[in-house]
Amino acid sequence: MAVAELSPSYKTQLKPSQILPLSSRFSGHRKVTLQALPRASRNTGIRCSVAPNEVQTPIAGHTGGKTSKPECYGIFCLTYDLKKEEETKSWKKLITIAVSGAAGMISNHLLFKLASGLVFGPDQPIALKLLGSEKSLQALEGVAMELEDSLYPLLREVSISIDPYEVFQDAEWALLIGAKPRGPGMERAGLLDINGRIYAEQGKALNAVASPNVKVIVVGNPCNTNALICLKNAPNIPAKNFHALTRLDENRAKCQLALKAGVFYDKVSNMTIWGNHSTTQVPDFLNAKIDGIPVKEVIKDHKWLEEEFTVKVQKRGGALIQKWGRSSAASTAVSIVDAIKSLITPTPPGDWFSSGVYTNGNPYGIAEDLVFSMPCRSKGDGDYELVTDVIFDDYLCRRIKKSEEELLAEKRCTAHLIGEGIAVCDLPAGDTMLPGEM
Amino acid sequence: MAVAELSPSYKTQLKPSQILPLSSRFSGHRKVTLQALPRASRNTGIRCSVAPNEVQTPIAGHTGGKTSKPECYGIFCLTYDLKKEEETKSWKKLITIAVSGAAGMISNHLLFKLASGLVFGPDQPIALKLLGSEKSLQALEGVAMELEDSLYPLLREVSISIDPYEVFQDAEWALLIGAKPRGPGMERAGLLDINGRIYAEQGKALNAVASPNVKVIVVGNPCNTNALICLKNAPNIPAKNFHALTRLDENRAKCQLALKAGVFYDKVSNMTIWGNHSTTQVPDFLNAKIDGIPVKEVIKDHKWLEEEFTVKVQKRGGALIQKWGRSSAASTAVSIVDAIKSLITPTPPGDWFSSGVYTNGNPYGIAEDLVFSMPCRSKGDGDYELVTDVIFDDYLCRRIKKSEEELLAEKRCTAHLIGEGIAVCDLPAGDTMLPGEM
Repeated sequence: MAVAELSPSYKTQLKPSQILPLSSRFSGHRKVTLQALPRASRNTGIRCSVAPNEVQTPIAGHTGGKTSKPECYGIFCLTYDLKKEEETKSWKKLITIAVSGAAGMISNHLLFKLASGLVFGPDQPIALKLLGSEKSLQALEGVAMELEDSLYPLLREVSISIDPYEVFQDAEWALLIGAKPRGPGMERAGLLDINGRIYAEQGKALNAVASPNVKVIVVGNPCNTNALICLKNAPNIPAKNFHALTRLDENRAKCQLALKAGVFYDKVSNMTIWGNHSTTQVPDFLNAKIDGIPVKEVIKDHKWLEEEFTVKVQKRGGALIQKWGRSSAASTAVSIVDAIKSLITPTPPGDWFSSGVYTNGNPYGIAEDLVFSMPCRSKGDGDYELVTDVIFDDYLCRRIKKSEEELLAEKRCTAHLIGEGIAVCDLPAGDTMLPGEM
Repeated sequence: MAVAELSPSYKTQLKPSQILPLSSRFSGHRKVTLQALPRASRNTGIRCSVAPNEVQTPIAGHTGGKTSKPECYGIFCLTYDLKKEEETKSWKKLITIAVSGAAGMISNHLLFKLASGLVFGPDQPIALKLLGSEKSLQALEGVAMELEDSLYPLLREVSISIDPYEVFQDAEWALLIGAKPRGPGMERAGLLDINGRIYAEQGKALNAVASPNVKVIVVGNPCNTNALICLKNAPNIPAKNFHALTRLDENRAKCQLALKAGVFYDKVSNMTIWGNHSTTQVPDFLNAKIDGIPVKEVIKDHKWLEEEFTVKVQKRGGALIQKWGRSSAASTAVSIVDAIKSLITPTPPGDWFSSGVYTNGNPYGIAEDLVFSMPCRSKGDGDYELVTDVIFDDYLCRRIKKSEEELLAEKRCTAHLIGEGIAVCDLPAGDTMLPGEM
């Protein structure tokens, strides 16, 4: 067995092939088409976890130059012939998952779930590519260290970078959690612009370097419009592949209905969140069921359904911050896992799930060319179809309309980011950001 | 289907049986033998998750009086006949897991892993009993809210309390994470005393109300001596059931050996952490193997093994805080899961795991009547046996001796908490707390 000496002085004298057998992952990386966007720090240096302040020097020929190899991390730079593992363990082919905002608290929960096999299954080795900011790069190293120390057998690669063109290379899933929080005195229009620019750049990067069928889940707020901006900047990727996360809202709505009905939450099904991930969102109690029976037949208190239910769902995040002093990172991460699983496992017969998806020939009469949360079903192949057997009443339609209007206004306000000319911001008065997501 | 109205005004007028069918979990609770220890706030009120500031009033006849029913939380107060689920889903009987320090960051990772089925399997419904302090009670409610919103089908009960006699009632697992951090200027003796008192009380509570075969994993530092104090105060529970967590150290040691050898971490086996969870701990490279070959044959740099390896393992926590600004909550939670799984699944042939366990007839000549990390194997029944085929050399023996001396001194320093008279603190000079665990 070969022993690799990893002290910086030794490594710089060796070619990579002398240090360790190059696995197949070192080959086959497409060259990146460099974009015009400013990218200050392309080569952030290989991150090494050996000890604090002992950052390894780059392996000769591995980084630098015009190639855009993401920076690998610690043990994940050094290892193994995965092909051999695939043979002996009947593992699937490695998949690459990119995560933005990777140093944040939601990711801190999510990454360990992904690495554990909980999401993609016990036979699916994964590579994690972590996107952070210059400010968070050290924190990203900390995250990578903890991933190393967790010894997850399925976690085969971890790389960190501040460059989306590196991180999204060959990504089959992109979980876009990173977003700027609203600064003091910032208007919603300002927030749309500042985050819209981030998502426009990330859309371009996905378009340039990701797997052509990459599935994208946008979590960073305002997530519907961020997702729209992202997909508009990634014309080579099917628009259908982009999702805005409304699954936490769905989960909370199920929980509140269960609590009201005095049943366990697993009895609640067919829960749709319509529209925007904002206070105009519509948790749909008309189509939802409890133990297979329409909610309105089970919960006779229709006043509660119409006047309190939606508020209760939307207040969860704010209530949590009040109680805990922190935002709902853990349950958000759980809902991202739920959203992924809903796309890679067949939807149970008769049920559906909610996701913010691109409106393109939707059967509900919702304005086209938006990202709008709607009821979806999946065969488990990563794709979905819209549910057709839903009913509407005036109350539901009126509220869906309000969320649609808001999303149309957000779209006009970000026209400059989706190639539709000059932005006109005529957002409805009042803040529609969900409590706890400021 | 019955609909339960849960507004406070309505509930106080009804008997519990009118609100919802009482499931079997409401019966069969043993009465608690009240202890002499001060217990300021027995009834903390039922926590309701419906909305902020809408805490429900206690259900009549459910709390108060001399019974010690833990406070249930939100949806977990209301639900279902689990017996029916057990029949239809071939689920195992509900197990009760108590967690102290439940509002902290380690727990924030751990609780969701427990609830997801990742630890005890997809057919094992669980009840979580969360122990916090008066200060953290609101935060505990936040944690319970997030658990609700995660809709984990296996999570059937969540209760929160600041009283260990409530929380440990019928517990089959007790994961004791809570501990006081060292205050400014506090000596190690002071830390031993302040946390020792907590663990003495928790030992008494476990002894009084937990399942007689409860398995206890102590994480709060100084964890070896805390575990010793805990077991000494719980004479009715087998001493063998108490563990001090050294699994994160084991995981880190495996990772560092893998990194040095240039192999993936799953190739490293037979890794023992000997002794105390402190800087006197001994990561054993003499018995560890890489791909089945003794480490010293694979890593020829014995100077590194003797002089750098242990430091690298111990510096991880400090390095992480430096990089991330936070302690290693996520990987600690992973290592707690690993520790539990090692006890409930058979150890792979030829391998072992480390745990701080009670020395009582150990084959290594280590002083009896300590909690000392040693190599263990399990049949997967929750129990373990010590490994006998380990080898020793002078270097290893000398270092184990040093850790043993430290634990003996810690024991003398906490004699007042284990019924051995007056404490005499002659702790070795210098701080042996692991970096990052201050």
